[in-house]
Amino acid sequence: MFRFLDTTLRDGEQTPGVSLTPEQKLEIATALSDIGIDVIEAGTAVASEGEKEAIRLISDAGLAAECCTYVRARRDDIDSAADCGVDSVHLVVPVSDLHITKKLGKDREAVYDMAMDAVSYAKERGLIVELSGEDASRADIDYLSNLFRDGVSAGADRLCFCDTVGLLTPERTAEIIPRVCHAPLSIHCHNDLGLALANTLTALNSGATCAHVTVNGLGERAGNTPFEEVVMALERLYNYDTGIKKEKIYPLSTLVSRYTRVPLATNKPIVGAMAFTHESGIHAHGLMKDSSTYEPLSPELVGRKRRIVLGKHSGSASVKSALNELGYKPNDKQLNEIVRRIKEIGDRGVRVTDADVMAVADAVMLLECRPVIEMKQFTIVSGNKIIPTASVTMKVNGQEITGAATGAGPVDAALRILQESVSVVGDIRLEEYHVDAITGGTDAVVDVTVKLNRDGRVITSRGARSDIIEASVEAVVSGMNRLLRSENENRSTDSD
Amino acid sequence: MFRFLDTTLRDGEQTPGVSLTPEQKLEIATALSDIGIDVIEAGTAVASEGEKEAIRLISDAGLAAECCTYVRARRDDIDSAADCGVDSVHLVVPVSDLHITKKLGKDREAVYDMAMDAVSYAKERGLIVELSGEDASRADIDYLSNLFRDGVSAGADRLCFCDTVGLLTPERTAEIIPRVCHAPLSIHCHNDLGLALANTLTALNSGATCAHVTVNGLGERAGNTPFEEVVMALERLYNYDTGIKKEKIYPLSTLVSRYTRVPLATNKPIVGAMAFTHESGIHAHGLMKDSSTYEPLSPELVGRKRRIVLGKHSGSASVKSALNELGYKPNDKQLNEIVRRIKEIGDRGVRVTDADVMAVADAVMLLECRPVIEMKQFTIVSGNKIIPTASVTMKVNGQEITGAATGAGPVDAALRILQESVSVVGDIRLEEYHVDAITGGTDAVVDVTVKLNRDGRVITSRGARSDIIEASVEAVVSGMNRLLRSENENRSTDSD
Repeated sequence: MFRFLDTTLRDGEQTPGVSLTPEQKLEIATALSDIGIDVIEAGTAVASEGEKEAIRLISDAGLAAECCTYVRARRDDIDSAADCGVDSVHLVVPVSDLHITKKLGKDREAVYDMAMDAVSYAKERGLIVELSGEDASRADIDYLSNLFRDGVSAGADRLCFCDTVGLLTPERTAEIIPRVCHAPLSIHCHNDLGLALANTLTALNSGATCAHVTVNGLGERAGNTPFEEVVMALERLYNYDTGIKKEKIYPLSTLVSRYTRVPLATNKPIVGAMAFTHESGIHAHGLMKDSSTYEPLSPELVGRKRRIVLGKHSGSASVKSALNELGYKPNDKQLNEIVRRIKEIGDRGVRVTDADVMAVADAVMLLECRPVIEMKQFTIVSGNKIIPTASVTMKVNGQEITGAATGAGPVDAALRILQESVSVVGDIRLEEYHVDAITGGTDAVVDVTVKLNRDGRVITSRGARSDIIEASVEAVVSGMNRLLRSENENRSTDSD
Repeated sequence: MFRFLDTTLRDGEQTPGVSLTPEQKLEIATALSDIGIDVIEAGTAVASEGEKEAIRLISDAGLAAECCTYVRARRDDIDSAADCGVDSVHLVVPVSDLHITKKLGKDREAVYDMAMDAVSYAKERGLIVELSGEDASRADIDYLSNLFRDGVSAGADRLCFCDTVGLLTPERTAEIIPRVCHAPLSIHCHNDLGLALANTLTALNSGATCAHVTVNGLGERAGNTPFEEVVMALERLYNYDTGIKKEKIYPLSTLVSRYTRVPLATNKPIVGAMAFTHESGIHAHGLMKDSSTYEPLSPELVGRKRRIVLGKHSGSASVKSALNELGYKPNDKQLNEIVRRIKEIGDRGVRVTDADVMAVADAVMLLECRPVIEMKQFTIVSGNKIIPTASVTMKVNGQEITGAATGAGPVDAALRILQESVSVVGDIRLEEYHVDAITGGTDAVVDVTVKLNRDGRVITSRGARSDIIEASVEAVVSGMNRLLRSENENRSTDSD
């Protein structure tokens, strides 16, 4: 049975700009243990006081997983680790001549002696020892093999081969790994050239028994081997039962993304926003007949759901299915025209939301959609000595309503008074508020997408303006108008 | 010599939510041709009117690269393509029984006939034909091999093996590919399980001669094989000269990211923000001695620069180097204290900017930093019937200045009047304005980072508030105060 050592809380946290509080680390460690990780590398005790506290919290939490920490081959590092109460140490020794001479200014013998001393000392302190060769992929293999063999004699329980700069290929991995397995061996890969996963799988296939991973492939530079990819590749492609609770993969992934503030790449395998989202007509059409045509695995398996979105590549099958969900029953001629107009919106380079689809369908099907809300004016005032305040005047079902609200900021104030003002006709909850990252100038167009909920009916809509407040108001009002239409309205027409 | 077919403009654009205008497509196509791509798959002519226009623009542009378009095995698709003036077609035929029966509702013979007819017809229309087997990795290999062989007899110039749902492994790739190379063969991989790159490299090593790629690995679901990763893996790991102009990789990557609005994952190999950024003390220390210790390749090679950032994993070497750059010369005792306090900031879970480092250094070195700017008040007014307007009162070098400006939105207006107001003491340009994507509620804390430039001196600073305008003003004022300090100020102290 392969094992997993997760280093999200050590290598992952070394991602520049990422910093977790001890409480966040404990929450992630608990989730890692729950999902079935065998060993958690909780941090580097000597890095800071906060790190020590976090490691202590995690080792005291009584988790099923083994609690491990990173140490250099120094007695003071090992003491710090032992004082935090960890079960084991990931004892890292540079083994390439480049690292030995350029980084440490030492020679092979000196490093060998440091390693043996550190292993013995860590065993004296009662720790499980994983002796790890840093930059092993650039090391002299005979030197490494000898160091590993003698390290095991000196008491090391496990070994680890680190491809520190991501320079392995699967071919080279298959050749080297069998030569250094003098004890249970971990493989620790980096993804600088995109091959961390392939190299990890090859190593497991060549004698290694444990994979070092991080959630979402976090880690310095291009990151480490992604946990979710190793698990799903082993399960789906190699028919190997990892014992991991796969349905918890997506919740774990979003937890880590939220706390580290490293957003998931939209096209990240398994956990990216688009991994189970489909737009192209051909694909969506195939999916409706049999989801396996365009899906490598069922999204539910990893705790997710399939999503079909519309755009310029949409075919009539997916547009029809979206229209039906929104309550429209167009005839074939109307459907073709709706598809044509949706592609037109796509051609303009923008995303197509539910509100867009409804507007198009109304126009084509000659359905009258008198807006329930008509915005007369909104004004916001804010500043460093002023409570952010928004006022709005709007007609709701013909009745003019003026109101004002304060908020945490001007956007918050504006959306509060909008919700309050429409409450006379319906209770609409803002379920999601999303702004794409803004980069460039302060006059760039800001893209705001909202998800609104009225009694369980959910709709997405969009606003795009160079003023973030106007964009937010536009998105919400357009969505509200769609949600407030009478549910009993007939959304089909009999005309051909 | 391996060739590259880039399908950023077809498979890449099929990423849900991505939509490019014809002009943007032409600009990307030109960049693809310039960097050395052999074939550009420009789109799917039948998808929409905008698509046709884009494909026509690209084929008429006189690019060095061959212009290709996606077609199904239908005469009308082929006519559309030929009418757009393309050089070649990527003629895609489903070849797995799953796709043949479930998606098309046909049988193997019918698909075989469609394929042969389409190949002959496309040749009649004067097109270069790449006959492509969709879902080939789940097809009966004898059926596929026969279809390919007869397709070549019918006139197909090239063949393509599509791993449509990303289910290949390197082992399986090495076994299948040699059996279907009846003409120059392309390999087209998807990254659903993270192995697109490894499978592509294996295929090239097993008889395929062309890789289908997308810039940044764009594409439906988890995307296609990333162009930049194939090129750099071939060059760096397999010592293979691809002929690609590598120094243009990063500019191309950012162009595509900007137009598609798909942000680059921070830990994307080669082109992600963090790929050449370092924080950890151990790594930064090693890098300063020899960059190859912790870098797989030189960032300049792909048009980028190395970046060292500070945080809780920083060691004294990188803090010292950052301080020197900012004009500080602390003694050893001061340096240790500065490092300790920077780690403290990191422990709180926030990013450390230049302005933070300077504030810490001032405090530790007992340097007085009287702020040049003191904010008295700022007010913004905005709305749908109001020109966004900001007023500000501040003391600049003791002199009170009040002013107002309008802008594209309230943030824009506020930053304009700030810049104008400080112009009496210095010309400060806003070089970059970045807001992290906002998800969750409208009262979430908004993280604003700015990069300011004064006569070539560049500084980053941050503001974090639940009001985006306050956060923006805070970031800019804090950075301005740092930039406006007298350059002649002595930033070392003699006291031990």
